[in-house]
Amino acid sequence: MTNIDHLAERLRTFAAERDWEQFHTPKNLAMALVGEAGELISEFQWLTPEESATVMEDQELAHRVRAELADVFLYTVRLADLLEIDLLQAAHQKIDENERRYDTSTFKGTAKKAPH
Amino acid sequence: MTNIDHLAERLRTFAAERDWEQFHTPKNLAMALVGEAGELISEFQWLTPEESATVMEDQELAHRVRAELADVFLYTVRLADLLEIDLLQAAHQKIDENERRYDTSTFKGTAKKAPH
Amino acid sequence: MTNIDHLAERLRTFAAERDWEQFHTPKNLAMALVGEAGELISEFQWLTPEESATVMEDQELAHRVRAELADVFLYTVRLADLLEIDLLQAAHQKIDENERRYDTSTFKGTAKKAPH
Amino acid sequence: MTNIDHLAERLRTFAAERDWEQFHTPKNLAMALVGEAGELISEFQWLTPEESATVMEDQELAHRVRAELADVFLYTVRLADLLEIDLLQAAHQKIDENERRYDTSTFKGTAKKAPH
Repeated sequence: MTNIDHLAERLRTFAAERDWEQFHTPKNLAMALVGEAGELISEFQWLTPEESATVMEDQELAHRVRAELADVFLYTVRLADLLEIDLLQAAHQKIDENERRYDTSTFKGTAKKAPH
Repeated sequence: MTNIDHLAERLRTFAAERDWEQFHTPKNLAMALVGEAGELISEFQWLTPEESATVMEDQELAHRVRAELADVFLYTVRLADLLEIDLLQAAHQKIDENERRYDTSTFKGTAKKAPH
Repeated sequence: MTNIDHLAERLRTFAAERDWEQFHTPKNLAMALVGEAGELISEFQWLTPEESATVMEDQELAHRVRAELADVFLYTVRLADLLEIDLLQAAHQKIDENERRYDTSTFKGTAKKAPH
Repeated sequence: MTNIDHLAERLRTFAAERDWEQFHTPKNLAMALVGEAGELISEFQWLTPEESATVMEDQELAHRVRAELADVFLYTVRLADLLEIDLLQAAHQKIDENERRYDTSTFKGTAKKAPH
């Protein structure tokens, strides 16, 4: 069992103990995920890129950013668990794909998107 | 090294090889994360909750949902890496906290939020 | 002057009086907009579609939804003002386009997306 | 009839002609709104704040930003119409509130949030 499987299991138990599976449709979990991502982004919205690089030096802000990123991660794990998606495998495949799509010579130093 | 550390390392190399670290400020990565979460939610927006539970039975839709969830996960890992947040530890602490906050008797079967 | 121009003007004055123009780059405003949209979606995430149709009957919830939709609207207006986008014209053009793209016979009763 | 009412009416007709009212629950429309906001933010994610200020000079990018902001606006109008929220009134009330909450002397030049 990977450490992500272990997290997924804790979340499954957490939901079961509260009879919350009824709320945890993929649709609702996707909404919750985006809601948490929205909270995360709110912490960064008025910061310059430079300020955003040092958020962890402010203890209170660091605490919030950490908690919000954890929330995003937890909903990602929970949603993947429900959809029976192997998150690690899917992630590695995506990097494989991106390595092919964004070859290092063409995309060096440019944020331009590759044609699909 | 955990499997998440391993992913983070691949992403670090991926960015370095393309000279993309300049784009990967926490601010920008938070934006990218929310953008991917938005793509994920688009797959679910017109589905009934019941339909959303069977998205993985449609091969094409399953493929997209899997890829978009992977993107969300990858930006979460990348952002955590940059901010030096231990994602697994932060996630477990968040569940610990939620276990205290949402006691099983008060919150059984209700989606009401706990007072902060 | 349309009522949207009037809103834009109030927002311009509001920002100027607080010396907040420095924060109001299009990038930051787009983030703020998505953050508010995330707050809006949080109100709906655990509701059934049917429950979501009656949110305005709950006074407290109605108040929050109204305030959050107003926030989304205000950032939309502010961003459009900064980018010199005529929001009403752009909106009408988008409907024109959608009328062509989603002809009533092919798309009757189906949420399938039109090919681009 | 305000120009926003007029837009709302066009959207109502558009949905009715396609028998799409069944998809337009507030829950689903909030998701669609956030999805469009996510597309909008994607245009800005790798830009510096300075570059984000000149997006309208790039014709292709300007076209996309305008279309995506129009989409956000349209879903905002449609959702408000369904919930019978007067968008203009709600927006002006929100500015009134913000004028009280963020007094010009305390908040001059600072992006700090007011305590609730």
